[in-house]
Amino acid sequence: MDRLVTGGTLLTMRGDQLGIVDDGAVAIEDGRITYVGEATEAPDPDSTDIVDAEGGVIMPGLVNAHAHTSHTLLRGGAQDVPEIEWMNRALGPLSAQADEADRVAGARLGVLEAVRGGATTLCEYAGEVGTLVAEVYQPLGVGVVAVETINEVPDDRSDLGPRDLYPFDRDQGETALARADNLFEQFGDDPLVTPAYGPQALDMVSPELLETVQRHAEERDTKLHLHTAQGEREAIQIEERYGADESTVSVLDELGIVDDSLVAVHCHGATPAERERLASGGAAMLGCPSSISAIDGIVPPVAEFREYGAAVGIGTDQAPGPGHHSMFREARTAATLSKVEHTDPTALPAWAALRMATVGGARALGIDDEVGTLEEGTRADLIVVETDRLSTAPVVDSPLHTAVPNLVYSTTGREVRDSFVAGDAVLRDGTFVDADPDAAVAVATERANALYERASENWRQADSELVDAVDAGWL
Amino acid sequence: MDRLVTGGTLLTMRGDQLGIVDDGAVAIEDGRITYVGEATEAPDPDSTDIVDAEGGVIMPGLVNAHAHTSHTLLRGGAQDVPEIEWMNRALGPLSAQADEADRVAGARLGVLEAVRGGATTLCEYAGEVGTLVAEVYQPLGVGVVAVETINEVPDDRSDLGPRDLYPFDRDQGETALARADNLFEQFGDDPLVTPAYGPQALDMVSPELLETVQRHAEERDTKLHLHTAQGEREAIQIEERYGADESTVSVLDELGIVDDSLVAVHCHGATPAERERLASGGAAMLGCPSSISAIDGIVPPVAEFREYGAAVGIGTDQAPGPGHHSMFREARTAATLSKVEHTDPTALPAWAALRMATVGGARALGIDDEVGTLEEGTRADLIVVETDRLSTAPVVDSPLHTAVPNLVYSTTGREVRDSFVAGDAVLRDGTFVDADPDAAVAVATERANALYERASENWRQADSELVDAVDAGWL
Repeated sequence: MDRLVTGGTLLTMRGDQLGIVDDGAVAIEDGRITYVGEATEAPDPDSTDIVDAEGGVIMPGLVNAHAHTSHTLLRGGAQDVPEIEWMNRALGPLSAQADEADRVAGARLGVLEAVRGGATTLCEYAGEVGTLVAEVYQPLGVGVVAVETINEVPDDRSDLGPRDLYPFDRDQGETALARADNLFEQFGDDPLVTPAYGPQALDMVSPELLETVQRHAEERDTKLHLHTAQGEREAIQIEERYGADESTVSVLDELGIVDDSLVAVHCHGATPAERERLASGGAAMLGCPSSISAIDGIVPPVAEFREYGAAVGIGTDQAPGPGHHSMFREARTAATLSKVEHTDPTALPAWAALRMATVGGARALGIDDEVGTLEEGTRADLIVVETDRLSTAPVVDSPLHTAVPNLVYSTTGREVRDSFVAGDAVLRDGTFVDADPDAAVAVATERANALYERASENWRQADSELVDAVDAGWL
Repeated sequence: MDRLVTGGTLLTMRGDQLGIVDDGAVAIEDGRITYVGEATEAPDPDSTDIVDAEGGVIMPGLVNAHAHTSHTLLRGGAQDVPEIEWMNRALGPLSAQADEADRVAGARLGVLEAVRGGATTLCEYAGEVGTLVAEVYQPLGVGVVAVETINEVPDDRSDLGPRDLYPFDRDQGETALARADNLFEQFGDDPLVTPAYGPQALDMVSPELLETVQRHAEERDTKLHLHTAQGEREAIQIEERYGADESTVSVLDELGIVDDSLVAVHCHGATPAERERLASGGAAMLGCPSSISAIDGIVPPVAEFREYGAAVGIGTDQAPGPGHHSMFREARTAATLSKVEHTDPTALPAWAALRMATVGGARALGIDDEVGTLEEGTRADLIVVETDRLSTAPVVDSPLHTAVPNLVYSTTGREVRDSFVAGDAVLRDGTFVDADPDAAVAVATERANALYERASENWRQADSELVDAVDAGWL
């Protein structure tokens, strides 16, 4: 074997619970797990790297199941505004100024932040996602589900009234689809990259293109990630295009899109019956509690989809709004918000949030044969989290494992000590093995300053409530 | 001068907004602030310690306005259970086993965690709070509002039916009152200690004792901290004792308790009209969003009290449930939960949450002449927070200060680099100057293991839902 991680509380996530083993160990060879179980039964290490996890937890690397990391360059640029302002008047004037180098710099910062906080796989949803994979993910050596955004509507829709139908540009859609197809060739030999299709939302693609995309996804046995029922603006488009009685879910159902290749993102605009229909149809659900609470003041229905038996993952979406890409923080936010949404402190317990942040996300993304659990034969994506810290101590193993709630409710994100992807060390002792976070911060800061300077006048003219806040001395 | 903190973005919190100064400086002499303003205008440092805050924020130390830190020993021991189980069936069997050394060990861990995360003052609410002040706060040299819990009811009320009135033991109450009185003598010469009275809740003290406590508070010109309208159990006691039409707030009003010496904690069981009455009567409000969401599935009305113009502080309550004592995390939780409570992303903006975590808490506690803002002449309680980190970058100063939202929504809590209380360094470069957190963790872990072992059988017999979760492999 190449490496033995041993001596901590082991959470395998195998089966339906957490698979807790006191004093556990994981052996790794050629990037795969060759043993999971009690430390005393582990194979003898020979010339092996031994990772001592005493005083900590050994668990699967976290799965950040939905993120647009490029926007990390604009962290702090758009939040605390009415939902109707967020995209067009707060974020829009800034993101319009971002060039490719800005997007790469933002993504690098966001991905490093996510990995520092325990993620070993991210689902990156972006236009020209291949650039981010090649520039950011592959050099760092972490897992990525690469979803190419496909839409047919122009970015600038400011001349349209609220009930005007978006014009569709089929060429634009086909070009994006071709980029998505190309991901399979470009990254076909990298086992850490899983391409997928991202028709952006039902109001942004024609039914014809959506069916074509679905066929491509079927042929490649991959997933179709769709922002689903995101709110009022989408609902109006669907009514205008498909009829007053139609909704996103009803149209998806009629188009035959509701099946186990569908990954439905957000879903806060769907009715409970529609959510149940999505789940019973086999669709997975991805929720972004920090983001949707920040931008919409809404709790995404992650606890509800879990009750329906769907595969549910959670993700951090984009930094402007929620502010972060930390998956332990996202798990806490999912649990906390679900409790108040249902006025029920048991609505989403710590253990359920931990599963969402690992195997739940992996199942939803269709990569659970490789990641999300620790099992013999799967890819060795795992982390060691110190729990004997000011933030998380004390930890006891009996009569209950306080590490479980403390991972979710108490971690700062900086307790992640070691991280391995396909057996290779990405983090050791809290330090990146082969990446320079200070340089990423410096580049992002320089680019952000230049971008905000370019955007400043348009930002003021867009006149969001943030402009008033600045003038009043709040911001 | 003794020390010059210079070069960062300065948030003074003076006036009604944040008092933002780009490239600011704070000079300190004899524990007090002698200059606040632009770095270029700062007095010449002579043989001074210069603290370079470039790439960071200089701001008032955070005020954790309501905490029971002893329970930190039981972090992870009681959460994810129905509200009705939390106190008696989950936490109770554990806390009943805690002795004084356990309480001190828990408080030390909790206070160190709070200070590591940027707090320079905590409001500690406990029985025999003087022990915690002497054993934990004074050696560490941080500010404390020491509130002695006063109640007249026996701890064990398990033989009472839900509508049986609690018996009152006046002697027990008078003993606690005497302990509270004694704090003023015991700590009268320590400017970092501010004693106050803590009649626990209206259902737990007789009106006679409450009026006596109020008189003592008036004589000493200090505050009266009262858990107010905490929910159903309290409401039933008030109806049974005072009449079916009465509520906590109506009775407090009749007793003449609603004035500017009242610090009303929680208040989620009060009606909006009652909350407005508390605010218009001059009462301050303290909310614990992480705690009340975790234990009750309820959002405390901090945004609402702010709208009413009350002084509002936030605090972390106790670790079991919310899981932490980090004030930046509490600020984020306050903002996030307020947004979903009001389905309004503007409900509690980052800047308002930052004020709650500093000057708001100081005003509510009645210590705002000394802490919560940075002004010439006040006590030098301030922190330096690095914002050029993976979690918080990039920060720009124009056209808006992204440091403001990023402090609230993006910090892990580990960006706090330096902390000064009355001018003395408590943290430098993220390290405690005169405390040993590893030792505190080790002691707490050893004591927690022994405590859980003592409590194990009673904990199982109390049969909370956590027992089932353990048996099922979740915990």
